[in-house]
Amino acid sequence: MDHVYFMKEALKEAKKAAEKDEVPVGVVIVKDGKIIARAHNIIIGKKDPCGHAEVLAIRKAAAKTGSERLYGTILYATIEPCPMCGGAILLSRIKTLVYGADDLKTGACGSVHRVINDKRNNHQVEVIKGVLKDECGNLLSGFFKEKRRKNA
Amino acid sequence: MDHVYFMKEALKEAKKAAEKDEVPVGVVIVKDGKIIARAHNIIIGKKDPCGHAEVLAIRKAAAKTGSERLYGTILYATIEPCPMCGGAILLSRIKTLVYGADDLKTGACGSVHRVINDKRNNHQVEVIKGVLKDECGNLLSGFFKEKRRKNA
Repeated sequence: MDHVYFMKEALKEAKKAAEKDEVPVGVVIVKDGKIIARAHNIIIGKKDPCGHAEVLAIRKAAAKTGSERLYGTILYATIEPCPMCGGAILLSRIKTLVYGADDLKTGACGSVHRVINDKRNNHQVEVIKGVLKDECGNLLSGFFKEKRRKNA
Repeated sequence: MDHVYFMKEALKEAKKAAEKDEVPVGVVIVKDGKIIARAHNIIIGKKDPCGHAEVLAIRKAAAKTGSERLYGTILYATIEPCPMCGGAILLSRIKTLVYGADDLKTGACGSVHRVINDKRNNHQVEVIKGVLKDECGNLLSGFFKEKRRKNA
């Protein structure tokens, strides 16, 4: 699998979020080498606190495949998922999570919470981190820096 | 606030889930003493791994109030929320979580994970547990017992 290729696709999604003034996080879900769902954060635009890229992509992939279990899939996220998204990844039985930058504020893969990488879970997710981490992290930190500048 | 009254309403929702052969968990969200959203698990029926009662009710309440932040609300859940739902409760800024029975398998309020009751979170949720816990817990355990009997 070409993790860099798919992370670039997730980054394209993240940039779409930024264009809408949403927190720039993007996700693609891949099965058998093909993207079956893609999404970016849409929280403010749709007034949906659950509108994180991971949850939106998981719901799309489940609708597309006709199953609430996404066996054998890889989820690419530009940023370490939060507890909500980590829980959704477990519930949907995603096989592998590949993410870019750590989220030191709400990351649920060890940075803050240990939701995803907890050996007590009844489903274990393979985790690969750090793919295009600088590009993924800079997109997010640049977004917030610009926000602060505008609000200063 | 009459926690027992609203938990009975959440139980009505849980029973609707059971009638659809979905895991019987029910939720109501209350603001200013009125129910603004109600939901029960619909995972298999809609092929949605994120179709837990809490997430569905939060999304409904946000759509209804026109805000992704549910300030000043109380969420009543028959069972201790899982990490996904715990994360959604934090993200939506719910003020108080009232739940019935502990979930010793995936509970995110201390039974397994500590997502909701983590002092590092940037939003602190007041938690009241044990309201109608036997009725809430028995509905769930009875459902799984019946499932096992049918599959035996």
